[in-house]
Amino acid sequence: MSEKEERSPLASRRGFLAGTAGLVAAVGSGFSAAAAQPAGPANVMGGGGQDIHHTEPFWGKHQGGIATRQQTNSYFAAFDLTTDKRDELEALLRTWTAAAARLAAGQTAAPLGDDLTVPAVDSGDALSLPPARLTLTFGFGPGLFAKDERDRYQLAAHRPEALADLPKFPGDQLVAEHTGGDLSIQACADDPQVAFHAVRQLARLAYGAVQIRWTQTGFAAGPASKGTGRNLMGFKDGTINPTDFDRFVWVGGEGPDWMRGGSYLVARRIRIALEHWETMNVAFQEQVVGRRKYSGAPLGGMHESEPLNFDATDKDGNPVLPENAHARLSAPEVNDGAQILRRAYSYNDGLNFTAERWPPWRQGNEYDAGLFFMGYQRDPRTAFIPIHEKLSRLDAMNQFITHVGGGLFACPGGAAKGEFIGQRLFERA
Amino acid sequence: MSEKEERSPLASRRGFLAGTAGLVAAVGSGFSAAAAQPAGPANVMGGGGQDIHHTEPFWGKHQGGIATRQQTNSYFAAFDLTTDKRDELEALLRTWTAAAARLAAGQTAAPLGDDLTVPAVDSGDALSLPPARLTLTFGFGPGLFAKDERDRYQLAAHRPEALADLPKFPGDQLVAEHTGGDLSIQACADDPQVAFHAVRQLARLAYGAVQIRWTQTGFAAGPASKGTGRNLMGFKDGTINPTDFDRFVWVGGEGPDWMRGGSYLVARRIRIALEHWETMNVAFQEQVVGRRKYSGAPLGGMHESEPLNFDATDKDGNPVLPENAHARLSAPEVNDGAQILRRAYSYNDGLNFTAERWPPWRQGNEYDAGLFFMGYQRDPRTAFIPIHEKLSRLDAMNQFITHVGGGLFACPGGAAKGEFIGQRLFERA
Repeated sequence: MSEKEERSPLASRRGFLAGTAGLVAAVGSGFSAAAAQPAGPANVMGGGGQDIHHTEPFWGKHQGGIATRQQTNSYFAAFDLTTDKRDELEALLRTWTAAAARLAAGQTAAPLGDDLTVPAVDSGDALSLPPARLTLTFGFGPGLFAKDERDRYQLAAHRPEALADLPKFPGDQLVAEHTGGDLSIQACADDPQVAFHAVRQLARLAYGAVQIRWTQTGFAAGPASKGTGRNLMGFKDGTINPTDFDRFVWVGGEGPDWMRGGSYLVARRIRIALEHWETMNVAFQEQVVGRRKYSGAPLGGMHESEPLNFDATDKDGNPVLPENAHARLSAPEVNDGAQILRRAYSYNDGLNFTAERWPPWRQGNEYDAGLFFMGYQRDPRTAFIPIHEKLSRLDAMNQFITHVGGGLFACPGGAAKGEFIGQRLFERA
Repeated sequence: MSEKEERSPLASRRGFLAGTAGLVAAVGSGFSAAAAQPAGPANVMGGGGQDIHHTEPFWGKHQGGIATRQQTNSYFAAFDLTTDKRDELEALLRTWTAAAARLAAGQTAAPLGDDLTVPAVDSGDALSLPPARLTLTFGFGPGLFAKDERDRYQLAAHRPEALADLPKFPGDQLVAEHTGGDLSIQACADDPQVAFHAVRQLARLAYGAVQIRWTQTGFAAGPASKGTGRNLMGFKDGTINPTDFDRFVWVGGEGPDWMRGGSYLVARRIRIALEHWETMNVAFQEQVVGRRKYSGAPLGGMHESEPLNFDATDKDGNPVLPENAHARLSAPEVNDGAQILRRAYSYNDGLNFTAERWPPWRQGNEYDAGLFFMGYQRDPRTAFIPIHEKLSRLDAMNQFITHVGGGLFACPGGAAKGEFIGQRLFERA
């Protein structure tokens, strides 16, 4: 932090935060233990109120926003790279890293300076807001390595095999306006304006090198919930989440150097037919989900935390947990032990017009709302892809949900102070 | 509250809230003082954390959500009435009132009951959430009184003159998908899911009588801000708001009986060209707004709370506060003293595709974000309409903002327990 900056009341978003920000910067130097802290169950919220003045570490072995206890709000953005120059891409990542570290510390994207006759380097709409535990998580899509068979940045040979092209799953209705991207930023914070502000500053710093492709706003189900939050279907979501990050989330020695300590993000925009779902009787909803609605207990069980009972049968010999129940089909026990760290947010994007093609030919609006699934994993080829191959064919929930967008992104390991995110990819390649 | 309901753990959204909910119901009986409490400046947030377990009174002289200290999140919905039957409309308002009172008290829309073989009367996604100061504010659009010259409910003669058709203002680009409606619900809460949940329950209860026409999600600028929050333009918003509600906000003896204690809501979806705005130098932004960006002080002043100086000139004789500055043109001093209670929320609805029609023929995405202005007033004919007639012609800010939707709604006075919202309209008519 420069001397000039420390003197300016504008250097941090709030004067009294300056001390905190400095502390975080010090703690976060190099590969500190900061980001290796036990994350606890990522699905448990702390309540915006008590946490809103806290910062999350930016520098470290892992990027923030993965093991970080889930914040209440998210803003996801995917970008297309428009530059053909490798040095511009590298400069962009360097700029983004520096700005992201400042933003996460509750500062403006760059020092504001005193000259009012030039455009401000930061739009200023987070100036009176606290850091709100902002995390910024960067990802590399397939197009960063090669696009339309062009190796724009001499990186094609370094595309990790785990950054596999996702197959077209049965039922997929992905639309281009919500799908793909060469670069991604996941901003999460305990305040929606802090998250949106951060991405806008980064997008502006990238002007001329990228175009923004799609975005998705999300909110967590119940920042003030006791225990597991409920998603828009009214069921508890995220009951089972891995705790062994080294095994399930972080890329290890099997991956390239720059991906070690990183993770693969599968994002899926999943629209839910809420109007339809809500007219189903509760017992049927429970058969679809495989859990009791109000307690969250697996069918046949009493408590939310109980393991699923795959073998129990009723008096007629039918499984208590139906063969096509969502909880059964997605359980590690029937997926070779695979687990995905889910950081899902609900979304609520207004209405879609719909017209029936059958009598009584009704037309009208339906909610454009659902779940923005963000799942982190060590290797999608042994996690999301096989799990979703199964779910997309068999899950009873498919009557009510449609995957309408998303992407797959390689999120590099974290950066030590002085490095930039993804630096080791460029050093090697 | 029935005995059965009190025994059920599902009667309130959280067991331990039952006491609170009961207390509020008791306090709110009849025309209590509850809703007449001093509202304080509506623009000051309390922070989600400390308030999230609080309830706002539902019953009272005024509807909630107007004088109520502004919550952090909003979900606004406008509906078209599809029924032609007056008794169905009356039944709808009776049902909505009862459900809204329960929801505001942190309960499900109706008691859930124990029968799981029928659809639940409440979707359940707010079950583990606190009341979050939910308010539900109902409004009547022109179409409730007459539509396409049809007097569907024998109410046409009772349309208040103050529910005037808004003129087409210069620059208006209102699109049908975000404009109008026969009925409106403004849900505000300190949790986005609580607000969305509440409207969805009400919409479902209205099935067959209405179609949902448009919705708008909003978030407040800075629940944790000290003082006035900043909107997406980076300036403090809402510095001046009326404190004399009887004079500026509540309809008095001049209005029909059912509107006394009510107010007129003008909603406007105002898109902001954020990318453009952010490239302007700060001094120019300040000329447009008429205030200093960082302090919020009026131009020529030192402190946010100072009055505007309309007469000060610089050494060249030019006004320090430009003639076309937003703050000047909207000030009560130049609008015959008119004031509007602003409860504005920011919105962030993803991206719009745009293509230039001139060299260099660029195309790409821009933010679909801006301000969802909700302004309450005693009479729009002496408040929003003349103020905006002036702003829409002269405001320097018009280079950066576009009104793309909205509506005008008569929000009746509040209901005493046992009444329904708008009841006196039906008794008289």
